[in-house]
Amino acid sequence: MNVGDRHYRTIWLNKDGCSVDIIDQRWLPHEFRIVTLRTVDDIAVAIRDMWVRGAPLIGVTAAYGMAVAMAADPSDTALDAAWEKLHATRPTAINLRWALDEMRKLLRPVPVGERAEMAYRRAAGIADEDVELNRAIGENGLAIIREIAAGKKPGERVNILTHCNAGWLATVDYGTATAPIYLAMEAGIPVHVYVDETRPRNQGAQLTAWEMAGHGVPHTLIVDNAGGHLMQHGDVDLVIVGTDRTAANGDVCNKIGTYLKALAAKDNSVPFYVALPSPTIDWTVSDGIREIPIEERSGEEVSLVWGKTASGEIAQVRVSPEATPAGNPAFDVTPARLVTGLITERGVAEASRSGLKALFPEH
Amino acid sequence: MNVGDRHYRTIWLNKDGCSVDIIDQRWLPHEFRIVTLRTVDDIAVAIRDMWVRGAPLIGVTAAYGMAVAMAADPSDTALDAAWEKLHATRPTAINLRWALDEMRKLLRPVPVGERAEMAYRRAAGIADEDVELNRAIGENGLAIIREIAAGKKPGERVNILTHCNAGWLATVDYGTATAPIYLAMEAGIPVHVYVDETRPRNQGAQLTAWEMAGHGVPHTLIVDNAGGHLMQHGDVDLVIVGTDRTAANGDVCNKIGTYLKALAAKDNSVPFYVALPSPTIDWTVSDGIREIPIEERSGEEVSLVWGKTASGEIAQVRVSPEATPAGNPAFDVTPARLVTGLITERGVAEASRSGLKALFPEH
Repeated sequence: MNVGDRHYRTIWLNKDGCSVDIIDQRWLPHEFRIVTLRTVDDIAVAIRDMWVRGAPLIGVTAAYGMAVAMAADPSDTALDAAWEKLHATRPTAINLRWALDEMRKLLRPVPVGERAEMAYRRAAGIADEDVELNRAIGENGLAIIREIAAGKKPGERVNILTHCNAGWLATVDYGTATAPIYLAMEAGIPVHVYVDETRPRNQGAQLTAWEMAGHGVPHTLIVDNAGGHLMQHGDVDLVIVGTDRTAANGDVCNKIGTYLKALAAKDNSVPFYVALPSPTIDWTVSDGIREIPIEERSGEEVSLVWGKTASGEIAQVRVSPEATPAGNPAFDVTPARLVTGLITERGVAEASRSGLKALFPEH
Repeated sequence: MNVGDRHYRTIWLNKDGCSVDIIDQRWLPHEFRIVTLRTVDDIAVAIRDMWVRGAPLIGVTAAYGMAVAMAADPSDTALDAAWEKLHATRPTAINLRWALDEMRKLLRPVPVGERAEMAYRRAAGIADEDVELNRAIGENGLAIIREIAAGKKPGERVNILTHCNAGWLATVDYGTATAPIYLAMEAGIPVHVYVDETRPRNQGAQLTAWEMAGHGVPHTLIVDNAGGHLMQHGDVDLVIVGTDRTAANGDVCNKIGTYLKALAAKDNSVPFYVALPSPTIDWTVSDGIREIPIEERSGEEVSLVWGKTASGEIAQVRVSPEATPAGNPAFDVTPARLVTGLITERGVAEASRSGLKALFPEH
C-alpha cells in the first residue's frame, strides 16, 4: 500500500535481479528504513531478528532466501544448507516451512544451471499469490462494508475496529483484516478505523496506525480498554481482526484481547468478522479453546515499553515495580459463537465446521 | 498498609502537630517519596498536581489544608480564602467539596482562638472515618473471599483480578477494592491478585502492583487484554473493582476497560464485584449508560508512556506515529446486569435499585 505518495510492498526484488529489499519493521513507526538483503545469511538474520514478521511475509522472504542462495551456489549441498539455515530462524512458523519445502521440491529436479532463475521466478510467484489471496479476502470483506455503508446517510463513515496488525506489513500487500478497508478506500466508501494499541507489544499503535497514516486512512488510536465503551455507544459498525490459527469448528486463535472485543461486539450487536487465508485453518483442531496451546511469552514485554523519547532516541521504559512479576499469554481463543463470519479468499463462511466445509469441501 | 516492614497511611499529621506528611504518588512505583506540607499553598499544589489522588484521599488532604490554614490565620477571611483556594484545585471532585464544606460549617461558629485545634481534630476524624469505612467494606468483601476459599483445597489460593487502582493509595488506608484482599491476608487466606496494568495511565502497573509488592501480597501484572483468557481457563475466582460513581440502578462507572472484564466474567461465570463507599452512589442517576457523561482526556495519555529508562531516568516514550490521533475515553459504564454484587460498608447489595434501597432505605 502507500507510504505517503508512493506504493510499496513489504518485499521486492531489486533491479539488479539478485538482491532483495525489505522494510525493516523494527524501527516502525518512528523510522521508515529500507534494507537490502544480498545473501542467504542476510535473509536469515532478517527473519530471525524480526526485521520482517507476519506468517505470509516470512514465507515469501524465505522463498527469496532460497533464490539468493541459488544465485550464489546452485549445488544440491547449497540447496539443503539454505533450507536448514532458513528453517532454523523461526522453526515453528508454518508458512516458513511451507515456502522452503515448496522451493526445494521445485528446484531439486532442475539442472543446476537453471536453478537460480527458476527460484527467483517461483519466489516472485509466491509473493504475487499472497497479494492475490489478500485481494480476494478484501473483495469478500468489501461486500460487507458496502452493505453497512448502504444503510448510512451519504458521506457518513463506516467505523471499523481492528486489533493487532493483520495489515499489509504482515503480508506482501493489502493485509488480511485490512484488505477490506483498503479496498473500501479504493471504492470511495468513507471509512474510519479504530486501532487497538494491542498491548503488550503495541502492534496496533506501532504498525497498524503507521499503515493507516501512510495510506491516508482516517483512523484513531485507542487503548485496548476502550473498544467496549465505543461499541456500547454506537461508535463501531463492525470489527475485523486477523487470526493466527482458526480451528475446524470456527474457534479463532488471535492476539491476546481479541476475545474481549468479540464479547463486547456480541453484547452490542456489532458484527464481528475474522479475515483469514484458508491455509491458516487448522482442520485437525476441533475445539480451539481446549486444544490450542497458548504461548506464554516473557513478562518483560509487559513491564518494559518501547518507544521514542522526546530527544528522539529509541528507548525502553519500565512501567511497573521491579519486584512485580508479569504474566504474558500471547494469544487467546474466541469461541465460534461470538464470530459473525470468517472472511476467506473463497467467500464469507459461517464460523462452524459446516460453514467451513461448505466453502472448503476438499477438507 | 505496609511498605516493606513499616505500616503507612497515605497522609498523617507530624509530631510537630502542624505539618502534614503525604506519599508523593507521582514517583511511584519507581521512587517512594514522602513530602512534608506546611502551608495551605503546599497542600493546594499537592492536590492540584496530583501528588495525592483518589477521591477519599483528596477529601482528607483538603481537610488538613483547612487545618493548616487555621493554624496560620484563624480569621473568617482566612477560612473563606482557604476554602476557595482548595476548592479551585480540582473543582469537580465531590469529596473535596464535601470535606471543605464540612470543615467550614464546623469552624465558622467556633471562637477564632479554638479553630486550629478543632480543625486538626476534625481532619483526623475524617481520616479515621475513611479508614473505618474501608475496613467495613473489607469485612463484607472478606466474607465473599472466605466462601470461595472454603470451596478450595487447603492452601489453594483464591485468584482475584482487579482493574485500575482502588487501593489504599486512593484512600487513607485499606482502599476499597483492595480492602477485602488485605483483610484476607490478615485472616491467613492464601490469595493471589491479577493486576490489570490499566492503560492508558497504568494505575494498575504503577500503583496497585506497588501496593501489592509493598504489603507482600502475591500478585501478577497482566495487560488489560489478558483477563478474558485467564477467566476462560479457570484462573480467576472473582473480580473486584472500585467505582467512581454508581447509578441508583446499579450501573457502575469505573475506569475504562472495566466493562470488558465484566463481560468476560459473565461469559465464564466468574463473580464480578464492585467495592464502594456509599457516598459514591449517585441516587439521582437512574440509567448509568445513558446519563453518566464520560470524560474524554488528552490523546497524549495514549501515545506517550511514562516510565523509568535503563539508566534510571524517568522519561516518556511515544509509542505511535506522530500523525496518528488518539481517542481517550477515561471511564466506561458496566451495566448492572453484569455485576454480581456491590460491596458497601453496610453489606453486599444486589446491583439494582431495590438492592441498593434495601441497604440504604434513607435514600
